Amino acid sequence: MASKRILIIGAVALGPKVACRVKRLRPDFEVTMVDQGDYISYGGCGIPYYISGDLSDIKELMSTSFHMLRTPEFFENAKDVRVRTRTRALAIDRERRLVRLKDLESGREEDLSYDELVLATGSRPRALSVPGVGLPGVMSVASLPAAMAVRDRIAKGQVGNAVIIGAGAIGCEMAEALSDLWGLDTTLVEITPQVLPGVLEPGLARMVAKHLRDKGINLHLEESVQEIRAVEGGETALEVVTDNRVIPADLVITAVGAAPNSELAAQAGLLVAPEGGLVVNRRLQTSDPHIYAGGDCIMNHHLITGQAVYYPSGSLANRQGRVIGTNLADGAAAFNGIVGSFTLKTFDLAIAGAGLSLAQAEHAGFDAASALVIQADRAHFYPTQDLMYLNLVVDKKTRRLLGAQGLSSNGDALVGRINSIAALLPFKADLADLSNLEVAYAPPFAAALDIVNAVANTLENMLDGYNRTIEVDEFEKCFLTDQAADSLCLDVRGAANAAPYVDLFGGRWLNIPQETLKHRFLEIPPDKRLLVVCNSGVRSYEALRQLETAGFCNAVNLQGGIAALKKSGALDLSDSEEPPKE
Amino acid sequence: MASKRILIIGAVALGPKVACRVKRLRPDFEVTMVDQGDYISYGGCGIPYYISGDLSDIKELMSTSFHMLRTPEFFENAKDVRVRTRTRALAIDRERRLVRLKDLESGREEDLSYDELVLATGSRPRALSVPGVGLPGVMSVASLPAAMAVRDRIAKGQVGNAVIIGAGAIGCEMAEALSDLWGLDTTLVEITPQVLPGVLEPGLARMVAKHLRDKGINLHLEESVQEIRAVEGGETALEVVTDNRVIPADLVITAVGAAPNSELAAQAGLLVAPEGGLVVNRRLQTSDPHIYAGGDCIMNHHLITGQAVYYPSGSLANRQGRVIGTNLADGAAAFNGIVGSFTLKTFDLAIAGAGLSLAQAEHAGFDAASALVIQADRAHFYPTQDLMYLNLVVDKKTRRLLGAQGLSSNGDALVGRINSIAALLPFKADLADLSNLEVAYAPPFAAALDIVNAVANTLENMLDGYNRTIEVDEFEKCFLTDQAADSLCLDVRGAANAAPYVDLFGGRWLNIPQETLKHRFLEIPPDKRLLVVCNSGVRSYEALRQLETAGFCNAVNLQGGIAALKKSGALDLSDSEEPPKE
Repeated sequence: MASKRILIIGAVALGPKVACRVKRLRPDFEVTMVDQGDYISYGGCGIPYYISGDLSDIKELMSTSFHMLRTPEFFENAKDVRVRTRTRALAIDRERRLVRLKDLESGREEDLSYDELVLATGSRPRALSVPGVGLPGVMSVASLPAAMAVRDRIAKGQVGNAVIIGAGAIGCEMAEALSDLWGLDTTLVEITPQVLPGVLEPGLARMVAKHLRDKGINLHLEESVQEIRAVEGGETALEVVTDNRVIPADLVITAVGAAPNSELAAQAGLLVAPEGGLVVNRRLQTSDPHIYAGGDCIMNHHLITGQAVYYPSGSLANRQGRVIGTNLADGAAAFNGIVGSFTLKTFDLAIAGAGLSLAQAEHAGFDAASALVIQADRAHFYPTQDLMYLNLVVDKKTRRLLGAQGLSSNGDALVGRINSIAALLPFKADLADLSNLEVAYAPPFAAALDIVNAVANTLENMLDGYNRTIEVDEFEKCFLTDQAADSLCLDVRGAANAAPYVDLFGGRWLNIPQETLKHRFLEIPPDKRLLVVCNSGVRSYEALRQLETAGFCNAVNLQGGIAALKKSGALDLSDSEEPPKE
Repeated sequence: MASKRILIIGAVALGPKVACRVKRLRPDFEVTMVDQGDYISYGGCGIPYYISGDLSDIKELMSTSFHMLRTPEFFENAKDVRVRTRTRALAIDRERRLVRLKDLESGREEDLSYDELVLATGSRPRALSVPGVGLPGVMSVASLPAAMAVRDRIAKGQVGNAVIIGAGAIGCEMAEALSDLWGLDTTLVEITPQVLPGVLEPGLARMVAKHLRDKGINLHLEESVQEIRAVEGGETALEVVTDNRVIPADLVITAVGAAPNSELAAQAGLLVAPEGGLVVNRRLQTSDPHIYAGGDCIMNHHLITGQAVYYPSGSLANRQGRVIGTNLADGAAAFNGIVGSFTLKTFDLAIAGAGLSLAQAEHAGFDAASALVIQADRAHFYPTQDLMYLNLVVDKKTRRLLGAQGLSSNGDALVGRINSIAALLPFKADLADLSNLEVAYAPPFAAALDIVNAVANTLENMLDGYNRTIEVDEFEKCFLTDQAADSLCLDVRGAANAAPYVDLFGGRWLNIPQETLKHRFLEIPPDKRLLVVCNSGVRSYEALRQLETAGFCNAVNLQGGIAALKKSGALDLSDSEEPPKE
């Protein structure tokens, strides 16, 4: 194969990966990257950790693991790749294989020819369309220059109150970054009823919301920002006006999502999806086979729904960059699609998932079911064990795994579980595959029957009709809000655990420890709906089986038990008992 | 289906799981467990943590997660399961479906009839056949009473020196348990040339050995214990005599493996493999369909080799117990086989793996290849990042994944990666599947191109001929031991990193930073074999590609670079440079 000239537009995540890969395979190729910005090849996902101060220097986001700055000179010398920064691609002439470039410094324009072109144009932050978004102090963290401006403003002592608009992943990460180290009075405003909307299952999202509030974040859900306005002579420079309140702010961070940069491609007549992302095939070619694209500017094929989705991710960009590099060098690599893995950390809580939530599954047309299991992340007797919260979604009929999401104070442990399930998803694995997933076992790192196995078993028991469950929201509505007269809470834990609840709820909270239940059926009113609870949902399942055998067919098991109630903030009498460990 | 009487022989791991599962599905079944010991349903894998003192009370190994002791009374009351301890099964009359039981208390014998029988007889520690193994102070940790005896002996202050015979998983865990908290002078004697023989790949095993020695363990490999003898009037009560030395010991722990308890089954004419494990089908029935078996007394079907293997594991026992319970209740559950996942912790190092090592793969008839990658366990700029060591094995022709093993100071992070690969193994996934495995990404928990992706990419590059590598052992032999005159080490790191090596090795250690290499080919002797090194093997791969393009076709890349040399103890000039982070 003859040598080729490769031109790459965009030099942050995908572009450099493409450039380095193709040069390693074909050193004779001429590879040029252009980028309209000053900074290239930086770790944008690390921005919250730069702003928080976890990283002392912005250069850490621009350096290799061996502490070399990834400058244009570095690419020239170490990678034999040409880089032009502050150079904007204005137009693509597909017929003649030319890209019109403009040097933003000199204003000079020129045409650069290519044999193969790569679009690595990435995404931009979605604009918030309210009055005042252009005011000084209203900022994003979507690029390195933006991040530097934010940190400068804080470091100069100009910020006491901060408002973040949008409780997606970046909003939640930024809440920690602004509040934890800098001690800013931080407000997070989200227009939908939950944090991580469209991503996290509502039950888990409620737990995250509680965590944010426990950490001092002023979290306002279902609030819409109407306006941001400058304040003359006030205590703060700005005010954020929502439909509910006015929030003083010295700094406003907007983080309401990302949109693909595909205008250049669209103008060149390439196929662009209604969502704005470029359409590519499995080789990551656009509708022009001489033009490849990947990363934040493309649509991805979702391996579970079969639909095209917009799913920007720095990690996908890297993997896709390698595929493109291989294909440019006459290889035959494929990127089959995504399952939608994600993780983030906010304060002491890690959140992670892969595949579809129940709502996403139902939206995609699956007849789906989900289970929540709360269990120790290692052997329950191992000193450092802590509870992990894991939600699993399957197709009811085929029992195919559709997705999983969870929370944990131990992110490595949670992400490991999620990745294991992510690995299974493309293979159309089912509940039995997860039930017998061979998790490596030793007490410091797993339970003998690990939570990933347990959540599969629990969901199987539910689908087989052995475990009839309710969730926290239903429990709260029925028992706490409506105080439904026909419902009785049957607490099958030990008396010491149950005592404060019995004290509070009186006759509506009946305590019969599970190991005594078989002798005490007569104490249970036969005409009530029984809401059976224990610490985590395990003993209550055992009790449910006994109750049904004894003819109590109107009993349900609270998924996740008292631990779920507490973590959600629905009910917490925590002073009076030790932490649940079940 | 009519009610049935289920009899379970053995009440430690598999037995209780079977009993509880079948009772939840069929409360009308009569379930009885018998066990010849005093203690039932305990977490045997937690014994090293009891002996170390991490667990203050042995009862923690016998308790549920909600702090109830799993006694016979607990099973009676909470599970409606009969339990008879100190009851030995003497014989099975398959024709009449009777088991002859002996009450070890009274000596009384009786027949108990069953409709379905479950053999959960587990394993016993392999006996060491040397003189003196019966002496007081020569102990095992294979059961709760044995563990209590060991801890009692230590806690009474009777032990200053301890010798562990066998550097398998239990031996390595016990080395930490005895040395770390109790401060015993601890010697570990292993007959083979490596720790974790038959399990861990030799290169990683060498790193573990160094870690044990760094932690003060007297590790003697390739030493065979000849005799244990009592000492009259000496400083210690015992002496362990190997073919190399005499080691004083107040306590000797033997940990030389486990053997299945299958004599009862064999006497009853059930099919038993030459290795001693019972032969079962996917429903976990023995050759008698009314007799099920699982856990440490059976052979397992290995999903990669297709062979029967003996693979005792408390975690498998739990999963198999559920399968048996379901089948007893007229369900249709299957246990398809194992991939051989394992993990353990010794001091600050976690070790984990799944599938086959290179030696195991070759032994099973695969034409296999492996790669070692050393990379940060999270974003290289994230403050808590640390190096992880991951070895991947594939079939050369099909590129099917055969196994992976690794080391890390962060066990959760390592086990998560191994479990992800374990999830892929049964699906005959290949390198491309792992290269694009959708690891959840955020800087605190993963790299944008995570180590599981990177190790697949590296092995692909090796198989495609782009990355020609050598391992630590070969580097050590060629460069350090033989000092081969035709070999030159080409260090492509920065001058500060390379300086102490240049000082030490003079003209045999040439330093040309990778980013300057393309201008300095003339400095490289054209007739030498070039051993290219950097901190981890990434920059040296880049250099290798450049060298080949420039006509240096006799260059090889040291896998894992200086980081591998250091971790192995082959070469460590660590005073003079910062930790490798590449």
